[in-house]
Amino acid sequence: MQINKETVQNINNDAFPSHQRRFNYLADEINNVETIIQKLIAFNIAIPSWALGTGGTRFGRFSGGGEPRSLEEKIEDVGLIHALNRSSNSISLHIPWDIPDNAPSIKALASQLGLHFDAVNSNTFQDQPNQALSYKFGSLHHVDKAVRQQAVEHNIEVIKYGEELGSTALSVWLADGSNFPGQLNFRNAFQTTLESLQQVYAALPDDWKIWIEYKPYEPNFYSTTIGDWGQSYLLANKLGAKASTLVDLGHHLPNTNIEQIVSLLLMEGKLAGFHFNDSKYGDDDLTVGCINPYQLYLIFNELVEGLDARNLNHATGIGWMIDASHNVKDPVEDLLQSVEAIKIAYAQALLVDQDKLKQAQLNNDVARAQEILQHAYRTDVRPLLAEARLRAGGALQPLEVFRSLKVRENLIQERGLKTVTTGL
Amino acid sequence: MQINKETVQNINNDAFPSHQRRFNYLADEINNVETIIQKLIAFNIAIPSWALGTGGTRFGRFSGGGEPRSLEEKIEDVGLIHALNRSSNSISLHIPWDIPDNAPSIKALASQLGLHFDAVNSNTFQDQPNQALSYKFGSLHHVDKAVRQQAVEHNIEVIKYGEELGSTALSVWLADGSNFPGQLNFRNAFQTTLESLQQVYAALPDDWKIWIEYKPYEPNFYSTTIGDWGQSYLLANKLGAKASTLVDLGHHLPNTNIEQIVSLLLMEGKLAGFHFNDSKYGDDDLTVGCINPYQLYLIFNELVEGLDARNLNHATGIGWMIDASHNVKDPVEDLLQSVEAIKIAYAQALLVDQDKLKQAQLNNDVARAQEILQHAYRTDVRPLLAEARLRAGGALQPLEVFRSLKVRENLIQERGLKTVTTGL
Amino acid sequence: MQINKETVQNINNDAFPSHQRRFNYLADEINNVETIIQKLIAFNIAIPSWALGTGGTRFGRFSGGGEPRSLEEKIEDVGLIHALNRSSNSISLHIPWDIPDNAPSIKALASQLGLHFDAVNSNTFQDQPNQALSYKFGSLHHVDKAVRQQAVEHNIEVIKYGEELGSTALSVWLADGSNFPGQLNFRNAFQTTLESLQQVYAALPDDWKIWIEYKPYEPNFYSTTIGDWGQSYLLANKLGAKASTLVDLGHHLPNTNIEQIVSLLLMEGKLAGFHFNDSKYGDDDLTVGCINPYQLYLIFNELVEGLDARNLNHATGIGWMIDASHNVKDPVEDLLQSVEAIKIAYAQALLVDQDKLKQAQLNNDVARAQEILQHAYRTDVRPLLAEARLRAGGALQPLEVFRSLKVRENLIQERGLKTVTTGL
Amino acid sequence: MQINKETVQNINNDAFPSHQRRFNYLADEINNVETIIQKLIAFNIAIPSWALGTGGTRFGRFSGGGEPRSLEEKIEDVGLIHALNRSSNSISLHIPWDIPDNAPSIKALASQLGLHFDAVNSNTFQDQPNQALSYKFGSLHHVDKAVRQQAVEHNIEVIKYGEELGSTALSVWLADGSNFPGQLNFRNAFQTTLESLQQVYAALPDDWKIWIEYKPYEPNFYSTTIGDWGQSYLLANKLGAKASTLVDLGHHLPNTNIEQIVSLLLMEGKLAGFHFNDSKYGDDDLTVGCINPYQLYLIFNELVEGLDARNLNHATGIGWMIDASHNVKDPVEDLLQSVEAIKIAYAQALLVDQDKLKQAQLNNDVARAQEILQHAYRTDVRPLLAEARLRAGGALQPLEVFRSLKVRENLIQERGLKTVTTGL
Repeated sequence: MQINKETVQNINNDAFPSHQRRFNYLADEINNVETIIQKLIAFNIAIPSWALGTGGTRFGRFSGGGEPRSLEEKIEDVGLIHALNRSSNSISLHIPWDIPDNAPSIKALASQLGLHFDAVNSNTFQDQPNQALSYKFGSLHHVDKAVRQQAVEHNIEVIKYGEELGSTALSVWLADGSNFPGQLNFRNAFQTTLESLQQVYAALPDDWKIWIEYKPYEPNFYSTTIGDWGQSYLLANKLGAKASTLVDLGHHLPNTNIEQIVSLLLMEGKLAGFHFNDSKYGDDDLTVGCINPYQLYLIFNELVEGLDARNLNHATGIGWMIDASHNVKDPVEDLLQSVEAIKIAYAQALLVDQDKLKQAQLNNDVARAQEILQHAYRTDVRPLLAEARLRAGGALQPLEVFRSLKVRENLIQERGLKTVTTGL
Repeated sequence: MQINKETVQNINNDAFPSHQRRFNYLADEINNVETIIQKLIAFNIAIPSWALGTGGTRFGRFSGGGEPRSLEEKIEDVGLIHALNRSSNSISLHIPWDIPDNAPSIKALASQLGLHFDAVNSNTFQDQPNQALSYKFGSLHHVDKAVRQQAVEHNIEVIKYGEELGSTALSVWLADGSNFPGQLNFRNAFQTTLESLQQVYAALPDDWKIWIEYKPYEPNFYSTTIGDWGQSYLLANKLGAKASTLVDLGHHLPNTNIEQIVSLLLMEGKLAGFHFNDSKYGDDDLTVGCINPYQLYLIFNELVEGLDARNLNHATGIGWMIDASHNVKDPVEDLLQSVEAIKIAYAQALLVDQDKLKQAQLNNDVARAQEILQHAYRTDVRPLLAEARLRAGGALQPLEVFRSLKVRENLIQERGLKTVTTGL
Repeated sequence: MQINKETVQNINNDAFPSHQRRFNYLADEINNVETIIQKLIAFNIAIPSWALGTGGTRFGRFSGGGEPRSLEEKIEDVGLIHALNRSSNSISLHIPWDIPDNAPSIKALASQLGLHFDAVNSNTFQDQPNQALSYKFGSLHHVDKAVRQQAVEHNIEVIKYGEELGSTALSVWLADGSNFPGQLNFRNAFQTTLESLQQVYAALPDDWKIWIEYKPYEPNFYSTTIGDWGQSYLLANKLGAKASTLVDLGHHLPNTNIEQIVSLLLMEGKLAGFHFNDSKYGDDDLTVGCINPYQLYLIFNELVEGLDARNLNHATGIGWMIDASHNVKDPVEDLLQSVEAIKIAYAQALLVDQDKLKQAQLNNDVARAQEILQHAYRTDVRPLLAEARLRAGGALQPLEVFRSLKVRENLIQERGLKTVTTGL
Repeated sequence: MQINKETVQNINNDAFPSHQRRFNYLADEINNVETIIQKLIAFNIAIPSWALGTGGTRFGRFSGGGEPRSLEEKIEDVGLIHALNRSSNSISLHIPWDIPDNAPSIKALASQLGLHFDAVNSNTFQDQPNQALSYKFGSLHHVDKAVRQQAVEHNIEVIKYGEELGSTALSVWLADGSNFPGQLNFRNAFQTTLESLQQVYAALPDDWKIWIEYKPYEPNFYSTTIGDWGQSYLLANKLGAKASTLVDLGHHLPNTNIEQIVSLLLMEGKLAGFHFNDSKYGDDDLTVGCINPYQLYLIFNELVEGLDARNLNHATGIGWMIDASHNVKDPVEDLLQSVEAIKIAYAQALLVDQDKLKQAQLNNDVARAQEILQHAYRTDVRPLLAEARLRAGGALQPLEVFRSLKVRENLIQERGLKTVTTGL
């Protein structure tokens, strides 16, 4: 199924008058409306291929229906999202779940939907059928060199697939760790991880980057070999300029000040990008902004302040992606909500009066600094997002259009009720 | 120093046109504007006497200036807050820090400023000079009956002071606990606490209530005898109908779902009220709504939904109070920000379309339920608060008026730069 | 495969001299050796059927080999454990994973191995093939009465299976909860859960009990309808005398004082029993005692002190069970280690000089109280456990015997390398 | 008061026979007893001057009695500890609390008691009377260069005091941080901290080191400028070879794997040393080993494995210090318990069969690795500590001797009941 622009425009027409009223009101309230709208139009968030199906937990999985059965259908779903919000112009593939049999035809399909390929992701946290050696005890950090070699080669293979599709980054998340004290020698594990990554690094094409993710626990419950930003940074630093640290918002211990980490990684030139989601307990992989939207805003405030261009588009070289698990929502609806939440946080951060904030900071005027931050946050910026979407050819109300067009019902009819996407 | 209505009105006049524009816009967007405004006008949050001075930590305290030196000056400060926001018409005293020498004159002073007396608070977590027995190892839970008796009598004395001033509730926070495994027999500690509270309960006047606070840790770092809502509820239940459970937002373990606790206490008729603040790590006692305003909103959503009247005024019998420690902000400014944050959360919760939310819940339409909640939350309700203040005789922009009138500078001139309020 | 007593005895003979030396030394050091040994012999910990296979996470599962393929083989595995440690004389079944086709024959098999049947466990957190209605949005708390009815009937059916096998308790763990704010009305969810449980309760045979488990999160990541001990206690209290609260050590928020909860539940007569495991982050389901053995000891200290008989055998009516997920260890080895850790904690707790401890507590002699607790904990009690096993016909060194007899290799030969047990 | 060797020996004589029995038994059980005892004798843990008095919280402080009133009396107290345990041969001073008026006489006093001076600690988290500029908004990170300069000069002055006494390390703990989002620009704060530290670094004598402590929160409750090991490491790395990272066990977010951090800092040559304590919630500053002694042991296991010499004496250049707050125990008793707990963990770690552990790790034999670690941990090593103390001229049972000699009663008589030590 595809949604064409005319359909969207027709539905927009009904909603236009009230949008117009809201937008005009807001445009009068704030400065630089046009600049902000241009930045919002330019800002896209990648969709990971594995987030297009229903997710689950170790206790089970409750399928929805009409889930994509192939790479082509995954691209089709991202095309639907992008047609609605004009903010998701790329897809991030996961190998081996998404091996393209015919790269040129896949590229053509994506291109036709206005999409390109974001970072490619390797997978050494599961064993695949017919895999020679097991990752039960890790991959790039494994005590057995043969296993490490297998994992290195897999990563290099992933780069190859990415090259064919036009990706320029390899995203590496390692589940490697230990479940029990004594299982692992921490230093040896770190050193072998470094050596393995150096081999992968050596295979990177000139214009490629490698993004090193960190996570404190799960699926290992005593230690993770790349467990926090400091460990990821240490590796990225030893690897070289193409390596940097990827921040998944759910990959932190309770109460971590994530925005401070983001700020420091920016300072050191080592911020690779984000896997966006929200969480209350651990790596809950919930819809972005559903638990603590203010934290998301504070992160964007650091990004806007820290990036010279103050324009978070593709040119910054920073990766923007959602990484969530949709256990009880329609995956496409969840992704539409997530993209909306991210762009709301961005728009609010763009409203911050950075000069006044700096002045308040220099005066240690803490109450004023809070007023400045909260003023921007409390502003209802949704009309700005709607206007940006409108101008870019998207829907004023993406989720409503998704429902009124009965997209999911159509997908179920096309694909069936019992399909299951590869992924989590 | 006092702020009179005319001064406030004059300043309001300048800000009125832009307020008018914002309010009119919002009034068109939402239903029942008038009902909401009446509820906002009726909703007041008590100010604790100890929050009017600069707070500190075990590592030190950095005074501001012009802090109130007496009970009279504390009441004066609450009067200033109330003159600005018309939402803080009561003060909560702490004995022995605020023993009124002359209750009628204190009542008259408060009354003149439009204030009354909220719950009174006992203190058995510190030793006072000339105190016969020490609370080093607890008070109502102490192994020594004589210490328990002293603590019981102190609580009864606090009730007496409260009666003279027109309070109708005793708020009990016990620091009693242990720092080390083995220090305490948990069951004995619980039983002696219950017996002590029963004695205090027996001394309650007919129309009084007793509010039992809970807290997991600090100042004890292994166990607290009333450590969570379940333990407080157990005590309140055994005590009787006048006893209920007080929720301090900072008194929870990491990641606690506070709104669920609030909902269940409401269900059981055992919600005493709140000590509002915000926190990132523990009992940080920060300005309300400065870290996770969405959580505050979710709590108010439970309150609006759970209380029949849906009108959180004094008539509900529920206590609303701020409890914060202002270490780096002007205390009055901090309190103005806190009251604003609370009323924003309340106004947003009043905007929730409860019928649609119920319908979505009955359909397990999770995405829709989130849309409904977030729509209300994302609405900029500040014009509603401003309008409510305006009608009640307060300032459109309380914090700005506080600064433009140079209130703190005046207080410093009156009281001196080096004053230190009793409290934390 | 079965291990007979003679085999064990023969191996014991080699280890006996050094055991004798250690035991004699220890027997001289402590009082009441005989009483302690009798208690250790009497104390058995149930094995859950689902813990006999390799566990996994949402990211994957790495099978071991020789996992039991049927209920009979699961019972066989528990028989092996019990033959080695003489401390695991019962198995806890999980319906529908372990539906006995022929109850009498299953009972006979168990009986032949010296085993009986512990609590039976219902499962409403997964959908089974051919199930009429889905538990995607909960079971006993579901908004749809028909789903609740289906879940109630399942629980009643589980009781029936349990009765046939001689069980006397139903253990209920509900995954029911919500992933997003707004998804659920907390009070309605609690009330429907209560009503559903009342129906199950009504179906309990006279001598049966119902154990209500609580858990703060996972598989739901915003709220769980029975989320903490207070909520479970509230339900158990409303249900009646047969209902009580089950404590799974991994089902708590960070930093929870579990031993205090245990103590208070004992005080209220509402402690159902335990699911033992250890964890560092969340419900990690690691080997008992592998992360914080001192906490386990403190829990046993409460049990020994709180139970009149001070003898934690079956007669207390309290349930003792392991609940762990063996992702990287041989399940049987992991269970042997877990039972050992539990009995070490019990033995240490039995060494505590309760009179001196009480005296220290009455004197607020905190340093002394710690000395008393740590003296017992620091004592190497392993010779006591070995002696108890020896007298009961078990192995002096169960894990070593398991390996020297090549039990796993035998099981792989019998059952195959690629078997997968039902369970987590 | 001083305790002389003869007194200790006389008391030892009574306890000797049972010690002898225990030690002989243990000596037979383990290898290399003599090597271990020599290492235990050589291993000393410094006592911080501020830990000799009763500590408190923001809610109050309950003094004990006989607290040291001067630097001389603090040294006297450390002398008492060392006379009893022969494991605390140095004191760590805190400036300005412990400014020596006459360094040579202070050195002579210490020397007479067998003590030397460990790292000196600066204090820029409190304002001192007559201090020109306030640290309310930070010190080395302050937005105002004049405040930074004052703090830099204070640190340089501390080095001077340290030089006079023979210290060779400056320990820097910065409370600098923020309480509210927006208060601080994280990157600027980091950069100014770095610049300030560079000035201090430049003033270090040739043989000195600077130890950079980290802490996530308290006394600031939103951000801390040196908040985690990664941030401290980043600074230490930019500063140079004399700078490294100090680990306070209580300065971590919930569930942090501290032993992994220790291992990686060792790997990078950046482990400065430790501030030992234990905690359940935050920086609780409890007696070492009173909450999770297994974690302490795992840390020592990393140290023993990671340090070439496997001898943690002064020669490693690593700092070993207790940092605790004794709110309800006699400070000296608490320190005796803490030193005991540290040395127990060290002794247990020395018992680990490192070769077998490595082999198990290479085989991914996780159950075996755990057995090896837990075997050493479960061994009762107290006779080894007693023997080491005996040979070094200390007491077999330090705490018992402290009590039987009525040391505290004597100190109260000498110094009075109401003394209050400077410190926390």
